[in-house]
Amino acid sequence: MKINGKPYTSIWDEGETSPRVYIIDQRPLPHRFEVEELDSLESCATAIREMHLRGAPLIGVAAAYGMYLAAREAPLKNWREHMLQAAQQLLNTRPTAVDLTKAIEQQKQVLTQVKNFSNLVSAHLAKAREIRKQSIEQCRRIGKHGLSLLRKLSAKKKGQTLNILTHCNAGWLACVDYGTALAPIYAAFDSGLKVHVWVDETRPRNQGARLTAFELGQHGIPHTVIADNTGGHLMQHGMVDLVLVGSDRTTRTGDVANKIGTYLKALAAYDNHIPFYVALPASSIDFSITDGFRQIPIEERSESEIHYLQGKNPGNGQLQSIRLTPDLSPASNFSFDLTPARLVTGLITERGICTASEKGILKLFPEKN
Amino acid sequence: MKINGKPYTSIWDEGETSPRVYIIDQRPLPHRFEVEELDSLESCATAIREMHLRGAPLIGVAAAYGMYLAAREAPLKNWREHMLQAAQQLLNTRPTAVDLTKAIEQQKQVLTQVKNFSNLVSAHLAKAREIRKQSIEQCRRIGKHGLSLLRKLSAKKKGQTLNILTHCNAGWLACVDYGTALAPIYAAFDSGLKVHVWVDETRPRNQGARLTAFELGQHGIPHTVIADNTGGHLMQHGMVDLVLVGSDRTTRTGDVANKIGTYLKALAAYDNHIPFYVALPASSIDFSITDGFRQIPIEERSESEIHYLQGKNPGNGQLQSIRLTPDLSPASNFSFDLTPARLVTGLITERGICTASEKGILKLFPEKN
Repeated sequence: MKINGKPYTSIWDEGETSPRVYIIDQRPLPHRFEVEELDSLESCATAIREMHLRGAPLIGVAAAYGMYLAAREAPLKNWREHMLQAAQQLLNTRPTAVDLTKAIEQQKQVLTQVKNFSNLVSAHLAKAREIRKQSIEQCRRIGKHGLSLLRKLSAKKKGQTLNILTHCNAGWLACVDYGTALAPIYAAFDSGLKVHVWVDETRPRNQGARLTAFELGQHGIPHTVIADNTGGHLMQHGMVDLVLVGSDRTTRTGDVANKIGTYLKALAAYDNHIPFYVALPASSIDFSITDGFRQIPIEERSESEIHYLQGKNPGNGQLQSIRLTPDLSPASNFSFDLTPARLVTGLITERGICTASEKGILKLFPEKN
Repeated sequence: MKINGKPYTSIWDEGETSPRVYIIDQRPLPHRFEVEELDSLESCATAIREMHLRGAPLIGVAAAYGMYLAAREAPLKNWREHMLQAAQQLLNTRPTAVDLTKAIEQQKQVLTQVKNFSNLVSAHLAKAREIRKQSIEQCRRIGKHGLSLLRKLSAKKKGQTLNILTHCNAGWLACVDYGTALAPIYAAFDSGLKVHVWVDETRPRNQGARLTAFELGQHGIPHTVIADNTGGHLMQHGMVDLVLVGSDRTTRTGDVANKIGTYLKALAAYDNHIPFYVALPASSIDFSITDGFRQIPIEERSESEIHYLQGKNPGNGQLQSIRLTPDLSPASNFSFDLTPARLVTGLITERGICTASEKGILKLFPEKN
């Protein structure tokens, strides 16, 4: 996708001749755009741990590159041991991230197959690139399948602007390219459909107001930022044609865990007969569980995210944190909520669109039956 | 209600011997507590227009006091004309505020009855005090009737802490004392019931995080600030026993217009079988309309309220505004939404509790039949 008219992805390398991997530092966005150079295992681990990057698919790719950077630093003696320590160091950065664990497992598999020290760097670089490429391809396909849905809805409106509401950031900044929920929107815009996106600001971390608005704006897609409170009113008044969100984890029965507040939008969509779709790579479907409400634990994060908010000081242009609440008031910060399958119109995956039900999901993924 | 252990109301006078009316300046709350002295028509009009105070009932009382301050400045010659001009000046401060219009009408009525210049000041002061007293009494009664509901719910929980979720600020800072939605909570706490309040921060203006949290904290009531996205999750997990909000305007059929986002909480309460009550003085019921969806216009405010947020700079303790969104992203800012009567369990008024229906409302207010 584009920034200032120039195509970017959220992570890329310079090839084996250079010890550098590049990422977009998401912390100062949208107020400052900064590319960060990762030239060591240490810098990569720091970037993941301290959230210079976020988004499950992207964290996985970054960890795979971390193993490549570690390989470049491996000593001739004990290089295998060095790599296993690196794997552990990367795993410790975000202990609950599923994609990270999967990427490290794949790189450890590579390590068992490396016979000679001289092949170490190229083997790990090849795997990191493969994981990166797979992520891009999954998102591209989600975009393609979602586009067919958007085409139908657009035809229903006789080509009038299609108004899509999204929550949080499920765009290319959370992946490598295209995104999940935003992939169909980019595909629609690029193919000439008229679209407009309502962007939930997504308190407390404001991923919508900061990242989704930035992504869409840079790509030239018409959008409007709204308070999270607003979506219901818009739906009541015919100003939303489709709700499209991502997912952190989905059960084999179609219950969707996603950023806190998603459930409220699903209720409003249902109450107003508006389609509510979830776009997700199959890797985020947990085929081992059937009841999202009982089986998906909901992370509770620091209450400081409620008390403090970061933005740009209009006086000096610097990033600044301010306190919103009374000093003595406690706050509570649940990160995700669960949208039961009954409120979900359909799932958009890299294999196509299905209903949010075990039957629908297994039709697309028969090997999981 | 109390601040730093001392009883306050949101507006009071010093008697006819002094040209001073006092208000709590709500703008720097919760970070700084400042009492402002209004000693002229001009300072009172400015305080209303520039939102040193807000909340429909309080605006009405303040406008009534504005007429008192104007009376003190009336010239011996042309005093009637001076008062009519003052009335117009006050009406212009917040042209859409119903309570303001009603208060000014009452003071104009007083003016027609004043025979001598020497009685002007005392007549307008008496009316201002009467309107203030009425507002306090209405809120006290709402608290009393609401308390009976809270007692029942508390008994159901065998005296375990009652968890109440509220949205926006419908507390004493929006009225003169007690508040509307918060009045039953103060009454319950003061009578020894165990209560805990989930406070929606209420973007974009954060009346919950700023004012409701401040009010409750100062009175010692246990509370927790949450992002507006959170209520649905809490309700799914049995952490909310009652949703209690105020109202800006309610139809004779029970449709409720209130702060944007109220509708989403009503949907979640309905989906999780949690009672959803609205507390309101009868003055905010519009007996002339029957369809909130078609007949209540929804105000759209400046998009700058979405882009910028004010809080306390932790470095120097000063109030500071920061920008959240990308410079080029547009925003949209609807202030209210409509909760249809079908989602409202009941209304708590100064005359008692009724169902959110024409039948229920007219039973309490038979004179409107």
